[in-house]
Amino acid sequence: MSTLKGACIIGQSGGPTSVINASAYGAIKAALDSEEITTVYGALNGIKGVLDDNLIDMGKEDPKELELMKYTPSSALGSCRYKLKDPDVDDTDYKRILEIFKKYDVRYFFYNGGNDSMDTCNKISKFMLKNGYECRVMGIPKTIDNDLAGTDHCPGYASAAKYIATSVMEIYHDARVYDTGMITVIEAMGRNAGWLTASAALAGIHGNGADLIYLPEIDFDMDSFIAKVKKIYAENGKCIVVVSEGIKDKEGKYISEYGADLAQSKDSFGHAQLGGLASYLANVLKSETGAKVRGIELSLLQRCAAHCASQTDIDESFSAGQAAVTNAIAGVTDKMVGFEREMVDGKYKCNIKLFDLSIVANTEKKVPTEWLNETKDGLNDKFIEYALPLIQGETKLVKEDSLPRFVHLKKLK
Amino acid sequence: MSTLKGACIIGQSGGPTSVINASAYGAIKAALDSEEITTVYGALNGIKGVLDDNLIDMGKEDPKELELMKYTPSSALGSCRYKLKDPDVDDTDYKRILEIFKKYDVRYFFYNGGNDSMDTCNKISKFMLKNGYECRVMGIPKTIDNDLAGTDHCPGYASAAKYIATSVMEIYHDARVYDTGMITVIEAMGRNAGWLTASAALAGIHGNGADLIYLPEIDFDMDSFIAKVKKIYAENGKCIVVVSEGIKDKEGKYISEYGADLAQSKDSFGHAQLGGLASYLANVLKSETGAKVRGIELSLLQRCAAHCASQTDIDESFSAGQAAVTNAIAGVTDKMVGFEREMVDGKYKCNIKLFDLSIVANTEKKVPTEWLNETKDGLNDKFIEYALPLIQGETKLVKEDSLPRFVHLKKLK
Repeated sequence: MSTLKGACIIGQSGGPTSVINASAYGAIKAALDSEEITTVYGALNGIKGVLDDNLIDMGKEDPKELELMKYTPSSALGSCRYKLKDPDVDDTDYKRILEIFKKYDVRYFFYNGGNDSMDTCNKISKFMLKNGYECRVMGIPKTIDNDLAGTDHCPGYASAAKYIATSVMEIYHDARVYDTGMITVIEAMGRNAGWLTASAALAGIHGNGADLIYLPEIDFDMDSFIAKVKKIYAENGKCIVVVSEGIKDKEGKYISEYGADLAQSKDSFGHAQLGGLASYLANVLKSETGAKVRGIELSLLQRCAAHCASQTDIDESFSAGQAAVTNAIAGVTDKMVGFEREMVDGKYKCNIKLFDLSIVANTEKKVPTEWLNETKDGLNDKFIEYALPLIQGETKLVKEDSLPRFVHLKKLK
Repeated sequence: MSTLKGACIIGQSGGPTSVINASAYGAIKAALDSEEITTVYGALNGIKGVLDDNLIDMGKEDPKELELMKYTPSSALGSCRYKLKDPDVDDTDYKRILEIFKKYDVRYFFYNGGNDSMDTCNKISKFMLKNGYECRVMGIPKTIDNDLAGTDHCPGYASAAKYIATSVMEIYHDARVYDTGMITVIEAMGRNAGWLTASAALAGIHGNGADLIYLPEIDFDMDSFIAKVKKIYAENGKCIVVVSEGIKDKEGKYISEYGADLAQSKDSFGHAQLGGLASYLANVLKSETGAKVRGIELSLLQRCAAHCASQTDIDESFSAGQAAVTNAIAGVTDKMVGFEREMVDGKYKCNIKLFDLSIVANTEKKVPTEWLNETKDGLNDKFIEYALPLIQGETKLVKEDSLPRFVHLKKLK
């Protein structure tokens, strides 16, 4: 394989996770340490930073400070949701990217994001090849949704899963404080894939879990839901339900839209109408059972709660970033770094594996329905076996005054 | 002081905190270790457990398991919101309590709760005295609201404060991920006292904080609020606001009720109507600014997030429970254990101090308005100096499979 000398660009794209910066740091560190990569640029706000010639020199950052990226949530370089057009229809952006690549002699491009970002990588890689510009392009995955094809799991998922499981365990205790009845509805993210919601099942392994878990993979039936909650509530006086924001009825309508419809009509429960799915279902259950019901939306916290991150996730995310760079230097291009699980003497081991970008882009991996229980309102041991190794290890997050010490970049050009 | 031999009862009352069990454990351990206390009973669901003769023998619990109480949120013995009547009007409950005390030879009563619980302690203490039954009664405070009079701070507050500050820091990063505009409204608990909401100011000490903080101590003016958010948003493209659930307008009407009113009328924003204050204010700001706005209710999580507890809070809570027992054995009665702050060579030190129950009961300590900034939409250094020492130290929470290992009591009679 020929040696390719030149600069590199690292960019981040899509929604935040607790560990996307660990991946970016893995790539930045490997690039700074390499002899082939001459300058390490960070693109501010992803591909927009490339298009706008808004690049910072990562070599000018203090190495000690840079290390804090490993434990800082959200995207330290800034992110975007910019989708490149089909180059056959409009290649303006691609020409501009090529111009910037030439300007800075960029020979390596690392893009850290979800499905759309892998698509971006793929398109850029093809355009460069077609135009005879030698540039190695690697995708570094991240998504709390865990829905990327090919890879065993996605960097970012495990930390969100750990936060959700921990929070459900804590809510379990809170909900049992009085000997009076209490129903709790917790809403987790994951519009099309139920991985995050499923992680609530981890709370159950030591008996502090949810009674019912509803994934978007299964049609949601309101009558059956109400009947199940009523039964559990009648038996125990408590019921904890975890629902995905993306649950839909069998006609494919989001249950969250039911609440929106309701707001257009009269308020039929005598309460203020609802912002989110959790509040909507809480009001439905309040009306159906007469019980005290609380709706809790885990909201942004589940994707940025770095203080509760999985160190396994952080380490793997870092490795993914690092592997993108080492593989590219070794000659690999047009691939996404992913994970393959290996069980060694019954112990979980995570190996780096490369995937074709074209396979990863624009597909979504769902929770296998064989991992659900028979009544499709919970997960079975297969899911636990899958998810539990991923959440192991406590974050080594640096604290100052007992609060997180997150990275402050100088962002010099 | 005469030696008093007999059994003791420990009960818990009011809403959960992350550390109320640390206090209960402090009392239980000290009682189990003492020679004067013959049997240590836990009252299930507070005073209701006494009235219902529903007592468990804490001596039958595995000591190692019992130790996990120190890190388990919510009330391990169960709680209640039962308010004893004025004994001059109806002394039925008091007679029953005396009957139970006599039945088990209870000579020590420790009650772990908020203002109402201190009132309960005080009334029981007076009744026993009046009826010539020797019994030492001690209150052990807990409240995330930090609103008990006398004591420098309340067990439970610091852990909630730490979780809020940490979460605000994380949300700060999440909200800055894109270069597009974003307004975030975070709702914290504290109906009448702004201590919890104020804790968001701790997030600002390293520059990851909220732009505006609104406490219930200050009349909330909607026009001024909108104008301030608009100004900050126009300047920075981002704005983070933290509001107390209890903010009121100058007529004394809760702002959270505005949303409820709105639901009675037509939906004027073209969106689903709102469950909570955060969602309501988010919709107001959406309509006023056209920006992307997110409302986040920290909900139950802020009071039960034991995984993010302050070890200082845990240790102090434990000491408070312990001190209640050692003081009672030494002859003290009718007191609440509280804290006095001492600065030794500029370092925070917390001393145990005893307070008259009658002073503590039924009063609320507010955030001093001198601790607010000039524009009354944030806190100044006086608050930071007060709160920062309280949140120090990471919880030594025991984990199993990298998830919290909370206590499982056998609850044997």
